[in-house]
Amino acid sequence: MQDPKIIQFASDNYVGAHPEIAKIIMESMQTTELPYGNDTYSKKANLEFKKIFQSDCETFFVGTGTSSNIIALKTILKSYECVICADIAHINGAECGAFENFTGAKIFPVKSTNGKMNLDSIKEVYYSFQDSHYNKPKAISLTQSTELGTVYTCEEIKEICDFAHENKLYVHMDGARIANAAAYLKKSFKEMTVDAGVDILSFGATKNGALLAESVVIFNKKLVEDFGYIQKQSMQLFSKMRMIPAQFIAYFQNDLWLSNAQNANKMAKEIETGFLDCKYIKIINQVQTNQIFIQLPIALKNEIFKSYHFYTFSENLKDQTCTIRLVTSFNTSLIEVQKLISDFKSAEYNFSLLA
Amino acid sequence: MQDPKIIQFASDNYVGAHPEIAKIIMESMQTTELPYGNDTYSKKANLEFKKIFQSDCETFFVGTGTSSNIIALKTILKSYECVICADIAHINGAECGAFENFTGAKIFPVKSTNGKMNLDSIKEVYYSFQDSHYNKPKAISLTQSTELGTVYTCEEIKEICDFAHENKLYVHMDGARIANAAAYLKKSFKEMTVDAGVDILSFGATKNGALLAESVVIFNKKLVEDFGYIQKQSMQLFSKMRMIPAQFIAYFQNDLWLSNAQNANKMAKEIETGFLDCKYIKIINQVQTNQIFIQLPIALKNEIFKSYHFYTFSENLKDQTCTIRLVTSFNTSLIEVQKLISDFKSAEYNFSLLA
Amino acid sequence: MQDPKIIQFASDNYVGAHPEIAKIIMESMQTTELPYGNDTYSKKANLEFKKIFQSDCETFFVGTGTSSNIIALKTILKSYECVICADIAHINGAECGAFENFTGAKIFPVKSTNGKMNLDSIKEVYYSFQDSHYNKPKAISLTQSTELGTVYTCEEIKEICDFAHENKLYVHMDGARIANAAAYLKKSFKEMTVDAGVDILSFGATKNGALLAESVVIFNKKLVEDFGYIQKQSMQLFSKMRMIPAQFIAYFQNDLWLSNAQNANKMAKEIETGFLDCKYIKIINQVQTNQIFIQLPIALKNEIFKSYHFYTFSENLKDQTCTIRLVTSFNTSLIEVQKLISDFKSAEYNFSLLA
Amino acid sequence: MQDPKIIQFASDNYVGAHPEIAKIIMESMQTTELPYGNDTYSKKANLEFKKIFQSDCETFFVGTGTSSNIIALKTILKSYECVICADIAHINGAECGAFENFTGAKIFPVKSTNGKMNLDSIKEVYYSFQDSHYNKPKAISLTQSTELGTVYTCEEIKEICDFAHENKLYVHMDGARIANAAAYLKKSFKEMTVDAGVDILSFGATKNGALLAESVVIFNKKLVEDFGYIQKQSMQLFSKMRMIPAQFIAYFQNDLWLSNAQNANKMAKEIETGFLDCKYIKIINQVQTNQIFIQLPIALKNEIFKSYHFYTFSENLKDQTCTIRLVTSFNTSLIEVQKLISDFKSAEYNFSLLA
Repeated sequence: MQDPKIIQFASDNYVGAHPEIAKIIMESMQTTELPYGNDTYSKKANLEFKKIFQSDCETFFVGTGTSSNIIALKTILKSYECVICADIAHINGAECGAFENFTGAKIFPVKSTNGKMNLDSIKEVYYSFQDSHYNKPKAISLTQSTELGTVYTCEEIKEICDFAHENKLYVHMDGARIANAAAYLKKSFKEMTVDAGVDILSFGATKNGALLAESVVIFNKKLVEDFGYIQKQSMQLFSKMRMIPAQFIAYFQNDLWLSNAQNANKMAKEIETGFLDCKYIKIINQVQTNQIFIQLPIALKNEIFKSYHFYTFSENLKDQTCTIRLVTSFNTSLIEVQKLISDFKSAEYNFSLLA
Repeated sequence: MQDPKIIQFASDNYVGAHPEIAKIIMESMQTTELPYGNDTYSKKANLEFKKIFQSDCETFFVGTGTSSNIIALKTILKSYECVICADIAHINGAECGAFENFTGAKIFPVKSTNGKMNLDSIKEVYYSFQDSHYNKPKAISLTQSTELGTVYTCEEIKEICDFAHENKLYVHMDGARIANAAAYLKKSFKEMTVDAGVDILSFGATKNGALLAESVVIFNKKLVEDFGYIQKQSMQLFSKMRMIPAQFIAYFQNDLWLSNAQNANKMAKEIETGFLDCKYIKIINQVQTNQIFIQLPIALKNEIFKSYHFYTFSENLKDQTCTIRLVTSFNTSLIEVQKLISDFKSAEYNFSLLA
Repeated sequence: MQDPKIIQFASDNYVGAHPEIAKIIMESMQTTELPYGNDTYSKKANLEFKKIFQSDCETFFVGTGTSSNIIALKTILKSYECVICADIAHINGAECGAFENFTGAKIFPVKSTNGKMNLDSIKEVYYSFQDSHYNKPKAISLTQSTELGTVYTCEEIKEICDFAHENKLYVHMDGARIANAAAYLKKSFKEMTVDAGVDILSFGATKNGALLAESVVIFNKKLVEDFGYIQKQSMQLFSKMRMIPAQFIAYFQNDLWLSNAQNANKMAKEIETGFLDCKYIKIINQVQTNQIFIQLPIALKNEIFKSYHFYTFSENLKDQTCTIRLVTSFNTSLIEVQKLISDFKSAEYNFSLLA
Repeated sequence: MQDPKIIQFASDNYVGAHPEIAKIIMESMQTTELPYGNDTYSKKANLEFKKIFQSDCETFFVGTGTSSNIIALKTILKSYECVICADIAHINGAECGAFENFTGAKIFPVKSTNGKMNLDSIKEVYYSFQDSHYNKPKAISLTQSTELGTVYTCEEIKEICDFAHENKLYVHMDGARIANAAAYLKKSFKEMTVDAGVDILSFGATKNGALLAESVVIFNKKLVEDFGYIQKQSMQLFSKMRMIPAQFIAYFQNDLWLSNAQNANKMAKEIETGFLDCKYIKIINQVQTNQIFIQLPIALKNEIFKSYHFYTFSENLKDQTCTIRLVTSFNTSLIEVQKLISDFKSAEYNFSLLA
């Protein structure tokens, strides 16, 4: 365990909640409500989602991003079916097999480029497996913004949805960081989902200023009927549910989601700009949202790691470099970013003397 | 959907959070913490549990009572093993098959009396199934206080634990309402669990004044090793975890848990007393904790149901009676109880005129 | 392990295969065939099933009775749904939780009488669980002949099917010993299934003279589509499949199934008659098919067990009696039966001297 | 469906059983035996395995290769653990997700070369995933001979086993075609498994002259205890089991397995040699066992496919070539092979005229 006081750019889930979110949680704690999602906050938030997406969608509230993804896919998949997704998708890599254990089904990974699948690689996987010795393809899942912080354009999403629907596949979107994508694209949630043809969306707020607020938004009515059973069986039906939908009410109020995401994105861009002239600290890909991937020497990384929290994604022992991830948050300040750039550059300078 | 403004004695999960709980949640929302249970609140709460139970136990924090039960059993059971529990156990009846789906294992139900299993009936089930055509018994699960509001004595728990351990079975306790049992027995949590031989405990606070605070307390070190993986796979590893352990810190402070449970139990006893002289409204069993089971004519029930929230457990169409459950909460007031008694009695009077 | 040379009335799965079955297996071993059920035997057997049932049914061949049951139910059930069946159903008791592990779903047992469910008890269970805290009822499964050797009349089956279909439930029949029921009722397979409204049937031949021949017969076309995937995922898609359908071809030829079942039933009836005048050996229920349940003193049972193979179902330590099961087979001879009766009676006589 | 009369080099599971296998199956059908693996054939075969492997191993008999693999892995893995195997492993690709559904666990695929994993690529995968957000590595599975017909040397197997054991991983071997590997390496089964350190082996005979004979051979005693439960739960516990172990008795008699495998390997080598001088028909990799992978133009393939059965593995639309697989069997004759070579070459000649 490290000292939590040290500066963190490790993830957008280290920080607390935005004051507006905190305020509505406080309020929701003081009332008597029907349990299990029959509360007044759930109803109001559900209406808010209908407005935001201009769709007669149904929204259900859950506690973790993992559950939001896995339950959404469970509504689609039987155990002998499969989902096609990027090799680096969160559902494939970072959920301890929750997908396989809860659905019994299989993931067919597609080789991704900059975190994104393209239609050709999806087609190649799709056409490879078409008899009962293989799971039956039934869904495509894409992450917006991706696990590498990149963003699908609305056209790219639509293209994937069109292919899916032509082949009777459903489309799921993992939107744990969808607000950052919307802020980057300057597009509405609706344009990236309903308009493009997404059937079911895992819509998260926790990483963008909420405390504990994830949801499943169902656009395709066929998937609604048994959701209540699936949610209960997934162990995600909270009795005092109200505190989760409450957060979404505040999240949509005055476009709080947008200002939060804009700040995070902007701070990430500041970091990218700050490192442009570095020799050893190299930004991988263009920064689009709030995740910054950096390649740097392992020795330099180890030095910086003494005072900063971040994740190391891979180490290349041959050339002694590694890839790390920095993440900015809704409340990351310019001062913190400037200090980070300065500290990293100092460390780089010291490293260069030895190199 | 009914109007939530109407008076509720339906469950202890309709009410909000105790002000002390609300206060610490508020505080926890304002700090930056390591995610996924590595936060300072988790560490502190873990120490609190060690103190409370005077045991080197390990405590993990989850979001729902169902998950607390199912994950605890998953640490024990392989899919070809089984758990023995009361037929009316929550894990058997009211969790939409979460047990079966998450563990793949089977439940061997024991006929219960007043909500409790006795050792003879456990033995009968245990000795019935002893070859590979049947799941292999590996655990006994008991609920304290039970689904009918009754309470196992410490001696009864110990007797079951002793039998279990002689036969290499683990003992799990579903403690969703354990505080009410402790208040009734005037025993400590430790006496009902560690001292009796319980291996793993689902310890809940949500029903007794918290907002969303459940936990798994592991006394048997053999069950600790892989818990982190199970928690993640169960989709119950919250990123901004801090808000759950925070509630337990407040819950143990100044024995908040005890005063909350005492109030709920006391109000239940008031209701029991209030109905003693009724002709049609009959208390089933002696009231021990905060659940009151009442037998009354269906017609009378229907009348009362117009203004009160409660669950109907069974209807006997032959003699036109039914069984309902009332539940009192940490903040149920004497005024509410007196009004309830008065309202029920008025209805009974009107009913008697017609009967 | 006991000496297999000792006389067995333990089960109809101790004996080998009927010579006609053996002959066709031999033949099927000598040809080259397409694998995985695309062989000529599978096609021919499939047509035979259509003729026998006078139905455009689809039949799939599997290796064990357990798999036949579980796969059939998997075609119907999602993990959050449930099947209603008799408490003593094979799927509930004697398949080591294969149902729960493979489907993830739950069994709602109905208290049975003489091995059979009646409609009232089915209704009681069905109406008890109707919200998302409980698995959603989706199927009723009944065993013909039952685990106690008793038989549903065609009218009883139809009554259950009608209730099921009114409530959008499917009906599964476990027909591991269906031939014995047909022989008893003097009804065709069709009358007991298609005409009564059964949707899917586990049709077994292994216990009635085949070596290894089980099948799933699907009458309801809605359940056919994905069966191939389920069969493969269940690990029951044999590569050299031909040997299983081949057995069914011989089984239906010249009504081999019927003469086999008639012999077994007749020998069981002989045993029942032989024990009519016994004092300590009491037949439980009337014998209808090839299973005989007998109540006798434990001491007497232990004596007989030294030279006979059979299963003990329960022991009542209080009155020192027990229940055992005898099973006759397609090739049980009258001589064997007469010897059994004689041996049991001698033992009873010796016991009576001590009693 | 195609005409089964056409010539097949599609798989070693199209052919029937060797006469010695057929003979012992016939014999086993005519006796009365204890069911569920307690028969005399199971005991005798179990002893044979102990002799063959010179090990106190325990062997269990199952019906399909898929079940043999999946059950073996189930003895090792809990749902939150994972197995590392080649990307093209049968368990990863061709079992319709039986692994995921039956174990709930996850596969971590390793990029293979010529069908084989090397230790470096195993290490890379192993060291990548070491916290509870990922499944916990617990086993390595390798296929001998591989899905591409290539063979691990005993040294390569040992190297992988050593790494596994150093890291507390178990090693599983998928031996569906292990006889062909033994024949190629001129090594005993023991040398490739016990001596190298394999913990558990799926040992198949169906593809090498048996009818329906697969087994799980457990060398590591820790994995034996609960196997009976797993086998029953997997729906692979046959009642009249005897016919499966019987086949293994004949299979080991007079090294039938070896002469069968030698013939298949030799015929494959003949095919390789026959195509050496072809321009359009190119052998991929050196042929080591009984699988031959061939690259040829799609148009040429389509022509040949009119009269031969085989699987197409991939099509490259850009350069209009494809990869097909031919498989020889225990009873493939030189005449059949010569005809195949001649037919393929004629087709190639015709193709060359147009090309």
